[in-house]
Amino acid sequence: MEFELSKEYAEWLKSAIENQDTALIAESMANANPTDISSLLYEFNTQESKYIIELVPKEVGASIINHLDEDTRTKFLKNFTPQEIAQFIDYLDSDDAVDILNELPLVFREETIGALEDEEQSRYIQELLRYDEHTAGGLMAKELIKANINWTIVQCIDEIRRQAENVQKIYSVYVVDQKGKLLGRVSLKKIILAEDHAKIADIYDPEIITVESHMEEREVADIMQKYDLEAVPVVNLQGKLIGRITIDDILDVITDIQEEERQIMAGISEDVEEDDSVWMLTRARLPWLIIGIFGGLIAAEFYGLFEGDIAIIPALALFTPLITATGGNVGIQSSSIILQSLANKSAFEESFFQRIFRMILVAFLNGIVIASIVFGVVLLLGKPFTLAAVVGLALFSVVILASFLGTITPLILDRLGFNPALAAGPFITTANDLLGLAVYFSVAHLLYSL
Amino acid sequence: MEFELSKEYAEWLKSAIENQDTALIAESMANANPTDISSLLYEFNTQESKYIIELVPKEVGASIINHLDEDTRTKFLKNFTPQEIAQFIDYLDSDDAVDILNELPLVFREETIGALEDEEQSRYIQELLRYDEHTAGGLMAKELIKANINWTIVQCIDEIRRQAENVQKIYSVYVVDQKGKLLGRVSLKKIILAEDHAKIADIYDPEIITVESHMEEREVADIMQKYDLEAVPVVNLQGKLIGRITIDDILDVITDIQEEERQIMAGISEDVEEDDSVWMLTRARLPWLIIGIFGGLIAAEFYGLFEGDIAIIPALALFTPLITATGGNVGIQSSSIILQSLANKSAFEESFFQRIFRMILVAFLNGIVIASIVFGVVLLLGKPFTLAAVVGLALFSVVILASFLGTITPLILDRLGFNPALAAGPFITTANDLLGLAVYFSVAHLLYSL
Repeated sequence: MEFELSKEYAEWLKSAIENQDTALIAESMANANPTDISSLLYEFNTQESKYIIELVPKEVGASIINHLDEDTRTKFLKNFTPQEIAQFIDYLDSDDAVDILNELPLVFREETIGALEDEEQSRYIQELLRYDEHTAGGLMAKELIKANINWTIVQCIDEIRRQAENVQKIYSVYVVDQKGKLLGRVSLKKIILAEDHAKIADIYDPEIITVESHMEEREVADIMQKYDLEAVPVVNLQGKLIGRITIDDILDVITDIQEEERQIMAGISEDVEEDDSVWMLTRARLPWLIIGIFGGLIAAEFYGLFEGDIAIIPALALFTPLITATGGNVGIQSSSIILQSLANKSAFEESFFQRIFRMILVAFLNGIVIASIVFGVVLLLGKPFTLAAVVGLALFSVVILASFLGTITPLILDRLGFNPALAAGPFITTANDLLGLAVYFSVAHLLYSL
Repeated sequence: MEFELSKEYAEWLKSAIENQDTALIAESMANANPTDISSLLYEFNTQESKYIIELVPKEVGASIINHLDEDTRTKFLKNFTPQEIAQFIDYLDSDDAVDILNELPLVFREETIGALEDEEQSRYIQELLRYDEHTAGGLMAKELIKANINWTIVQCIDEIRRQAENVQKIYSVYVVDQKGKLLGRVSLKKIILAEDHAKIADIYDPEIITVESHMEEREVADIMQKYDLEAVPVVNLQGKLIGRITIDDILDVITDIQEEERQIMAGISEDVEEDDSVWMLTRARLPWLIIGIFGGLIAAEFYGLFEGDIAIIPALALFTPLITATGGNVGIQSSSIILQSLANKSAFEESFFQRIFRMILVAFLNGIVIASIVFGVVLLLGKPFTLAAVVGLALFSVVILASFLGTITPLILDRLGFNPALAAGPFITTANDLLGLAVYFSVAHLLYSL
């Protein structure tokens, strides 16, 4: 049976596992891409998955485990001994190895590292474990090709040959001095085209973009994207070359940041996926819903202060949804525009006051337009002039205030080191409901002189 | 003055331009990264920018223009003749060239292409212009290294030398047969390590992942991310190698999709940035606000049907913000969870009914919890039992209905070919306001038998 990502193959495999058709399974997997085998495993329980992984070469098994998502992998690895896991870890790049080890319970992790056969790998791992996961140091791999500036091309090629099996993807060779200080790079293309006796010193490119080990992953992503880099060398404070970050890891960083932001904006408090357990999904959604509930209850209490007004002018109540909804929409719009410019910071930032000023202008224009539309329509609906005026004026004020809140909240959160996306979530809508009611009834009191 | 991205340098440059210090400026830019010069140009008007670009070598100028954002570039290129632009286009990779040409007015574009000196480039461009921008064909570049399967390594290296200046970044050499059909690839690493007399046929890797020219950019991005590819070859229906997509273009695709999604979720109808003109920002924000307004006005009219009830039980009004806000929050949560699983489709999808069933379960749990909290608190606030019951029951029903809407809307939009993110935007909140009111007052009628 030919390997393919299909229900048919999955079913064939299930029965093959039951009948212990070891040979058949191994054969059908022989040419399969490890990544595809990973996707297939989501259809199998951990025992079946273990059975499959033990049938393929350790190197393939390592890559399969590496491509599983974190939750699945954590569950899955519970069925292995530290010694078994170590055998796979030996085949992984140091950065992937560390990511997986970080998911293991501390003691278990120590035992696994202890059981590694490849000493260089275990040295690499112990160094990488010292860096915060979300910094350049936490993203980098130790596998890279280094060439001394005094070498010739031939020496450089020997080094590539020596490292060939450790470093799967080589984009360029990094040039260092005696002390290991990074001086520049030579692309593989240049190496191929250079004469054998040519010296690195004569052909290397000293203009090289680097990142420091403590730099935040988000910043690293911006740099690699801005300069179209497929790999970036990591240096320590002394400028010594200590690792390399490849673009595939940055892609994952970018999508993780994106998903996290979407979840925050949607008021989801845990990293869940649609196919997670009902319990996990509930737990992820309840917190913000409950906060929203209390916001709503406060709104109700607050609203209660004006119960008298409604008793006198029941029509006042009718427009509260309009007011609160508009406040919410304006707030989300403003904050997400700020979010975007926080996400791609330019070299020349607008000052805080420029921002506020421009925001006020925009709000003013928006406010005028929608307030007059509503004022007109409410009159057309045959409501009294004062009511139309109250709704229109309240709407205008709400737009101004909501955009102000929506603009400063993310800026403040960012300044305080929180995720500014919080400001585009349920938080701002709840706040705006209260704000809307307050403004609405104050205006009503003003014009009705209740 | 040393080039740097700073206000100081920008000011120095401004004055240097006034004094026409051509030599000084050219010198200070000599070692600057073109990308950095692009970022700097945002601080300058189009005349100043043109002055700068004419001082640097054409190749650098081309790269500077290539790194400007679309709006700035469009404004900027208005100051050039087709002949002037063509000189820069000659230096760009075909994919970047096409992106820029697509931004020019049709006639102007034709003249520019006519003015190209590099005939190969103009052939490439005319071919690429035929593809839809958002497909693999629209992303690919024609520049790549091809080797015939019967060649030796030496012949392959000669080809690399011949193409060296056309193809800036080489990741691997693509192996084709006589007819140009793609057979596999050889990594540069393998080429460096191979013996000169070795044959491509003996060392190439036939297991290669490809994309077809008509594939959607989103899909291409998923594939390159899933398989950690830094470049992917593009083939036509006959399997002939016709181009290559590199990861830097995919990074831009991913961030564009992300920004578009955020804007849709925030109810912003145009691709705007915080520093766009007040007018643009207003134009981008008004449409959804106005739609929201009419939603609110309909809500008011609808609400009016129950004005009588409020006259009898004014307290009923107090909890409308709570009901509508909760409906909104639940709706956004549900739809954004669906959005996420639409974004990373797995090989084995849940069926529509599995999704709905699991969603109902989650909604049920959430509903029970917050309904009972609210029921309790309302009682504690000393409100009558019936009112507490109305609010609690209404809230429960709203949670169920809002998650149902939030779940099916993105699925339906996706099926119909619209962007499902629309379902996580103002659209769903507005719909939920109406839904909430309807449910709330129906329940009130039921329990109060008004």
